Amino acid sequence: MTITPVILSGGSGTRLWPLSTTEKPKQFLALTDELTMFQLTAARCEDGSRFAPPIVVGNGRHAATIEAQLAEIGIAPDAVILEPAARNTAAAIALAALEVATPDALMLVMPSDHSIARCDVFLDAVGRAAPAARDGWLVTFGIEPSGPETGYGYIEMNDVKLGDGGLAAVRRFVEKPEREAAKAMLRRGGYVWNAGIFLMRADRFLDALERYEPAVAEAARKAHGAAAREGLRVLPDEAAFSAAPSISVDCAVMERSDTVAVMPLGCGWSDIGSWDALADNSLPDPDGSVLRGDVIAHDSRNLVVRSEGVRIHLHGVSDLIVVASGGEIVIMPRGASQNMRAVVDAAKARGRRGDEGD
Amino acid sequence: MTITPVILSGGSGTRLWPLSTTEKPKQFLALTDELTMFQLTAARCEDGSRFAPPIVVGNGRHAATIEAQLAEIGIAPDAVILEPAARNTAAAIALAALEVATPDALMLVMPSDHSIARCDVFLDAVGRAAPAARDGWLVTFGIEPSGPETGYGYIEMNDVKLGDGGLAAVRRFVEKPEREAAKAMLRRGGYVWNAGIFLMRADRFLDALERYEPAVAEAARKAHGAAAREGLRVLPDEAAFSAAPSISVDCAVMERSDTVAVMPLGCGWSDIGSWDALADNSLPDPDGSVLRGDVIAHDSRNLVVRSEGVRIHLHGVSDLIVVASGGEIVIMPRGASQNMRAVVDAAKARGRRGDEGD
Repeated sequence: MTITPVILSGGSGTRLWPLSTTEKPKQFLALTDELTMFQLTAARCEDGSRFAPPIVVGNGRHAATIEAQLAEIGIAPDAVILEPAARNTAAAIALAALEVATPDALMLVMPSDHSIARCDVFLDAVGRAAPAARDGWLVTFGIEPSGPETGYGYIEMNDVKLGDGGLAAVRRFVEKPEREAAKAMLRRGGYVWNAGIFLMRADRFLDALERYEPAVAEAARKAHGAAAREGLRVLPDEAAFSAAPSISVDCAVMERSDTVAVMPLGCGWSDIGSWDALADNSLPDPDGSVLRGDVIAHDSRNLVVRSEGVRIHLHGVSDLIVVASGGEIVIMPRGASQNMRAVVDAAKARGRRGDEGD
Repeated sequence: MTITPVILSGGSGTRLWPLSTTEKPKQFLALTDELTMFQLTAARCEDGSRFAPPIVVGNGRHAATIEAQLAEIGIAPDAVILEPAARNTAAAIALAALEVATPDALMLVMPSDHSIARCDVFLDAVGRAAPAARDGWLVTFGIEPSGPETGYGYIEMNDVKLGDGGLAAVRRFVEKPEREAAKAMLRRGGYVWNAGIFLMRADRFLDALERYEPAVAEAARKAHGAAAREGLRVLPDEAAFSAAPSISVDCAVMERSDTVAVMPLGCGWSDIGSWDALADNSLPDPDGSVLRGDVIAHDSRNLVVRSEGVRIHLHGVSDLIVVASGGEIVIMPRGASQNMRAVVDAAKARGRRGDEGD
């Protein structure tokens, strides 16, 4: 039995502003590769012997982009579910679970804007997790931490393993920690980052959602039952779906259920959550710089430059991030790209051009 | 008898690229003020009791800009001489000298892209130089050096003054010096920078040109004699004018004539020859920055930013020059703007968008 990829394309982050905007969020940009993050996500599961055609859950305004980007890489989806409102991941996954071909189908739920350097390692872990998922475990994939990051949630694994595939039951979920707490977890060991990637049976997920967040389950069922259909597009009923509480799948199900297991994953994962993270996941040139677009750099080192629509000339500068797109140019030091939120907020306050963002 | 301002508008520098281009060179840009450098030059001599309407000598492709910028500040020129080819300053000044109302008219020849902070000091010096100029001296104005600059020519003054107005005969002209030579001149004293500003009778200038560079004088006479006229526009004959050797007024006349005098000038002069020079001649904000256009800077210091057509966001950076115009963005450190030539050359080598420059 094949696995159905479920690609979540709901985000509209501003952390890669001004390149990422509400109209064209991160997943639809070619950042680490010639393919977009969304295309890379879909292409990860294109082996028809192991995977069914994907179900995409996304924002209605991105319908054409989703379809065009899939067509470009020759992937025909099973369905493109267009959310009439943003209701977070619990409701989005519920829509996909209601759409899969058979109730007991295995879903591999993936955010569409994460980078995975070693696809083979990822797919191997999915294969090792599949038997437990078929048995009814809600499997989450946990990234082996490379440092005391404060930007991710953590998962504490039970010492006792479930079988010999590396799977462990979850002891607890830890919200994004302070620096010291993150360091302490790394010292103790047995913690992984919560990447928001899941392998689980549709029916077992819906059962758990029904139990812990029945309002989400009910809204998704009604919206899906009354959905309009246009070819492969599924348009859930807006009034019904809007009634769903906006809650993440972690809060709604994973942190509450006692049948959640975690599969550790060392696959070169990144959520590309900032320009620095993007640079860390790109191959630098001999000057230590990552340059994309129409850029001329001389006597310059350790730059991250991305240009769309303008030409950027750099002479004698180093350790800068420069991003130009859509009439906006951002200049900040390397290592400071977590401040993008403040830049976007200042742009909004100035009242023109600032993107809505998330 | 009034003085006729002669405004030379032939330059097409690239030192303020990408803002200054062949199409819109420095003199037509508002850099230090809401008025353009050209307008500031014309406005310096708008006192009708002392000055006649100006004669402008410029490039044919800038005719409309010249006329529009004069109209904007309510100055009606005596003539706008449009050079059919660039033949340097000796020929340009000769055209103006042939155009003035009477042969013995006094001309105040001024480049159109220099900044003068203290106009009163400048006009006072012009007034003090006028009697000697009427007597037949070719008067050049010499800027009191503020440091051992290597970007300007120097003039050594004779110790003996001509009258009590401060005027001195010229001992010799010194080409742009090396650093050590510049320092030595400052130590010795008696040297001023050659700013290319002159006060002289039209007939005496033409006499000297006839003597030292007869080919320039002859070409200018023929071209002016056969000029077409359209309203205030004077269009010298192209074939005749093109025959003129391309030589500066300094090389052609000033360095050779023994009737050249120099009037020292401490009027806050700058040729605004680089982005650093522009910043030095602008009032910084409390962060030490000079920001123009749509710029949002936070937690940043000592910036020179000029934006046209895009919005520039800076966060946590300092000591940078950032200039955006016409789809080009240049980023370099403060103090390094003399490297602009290399940036423009690299852009040309890349083959697109690079401006021809000078």
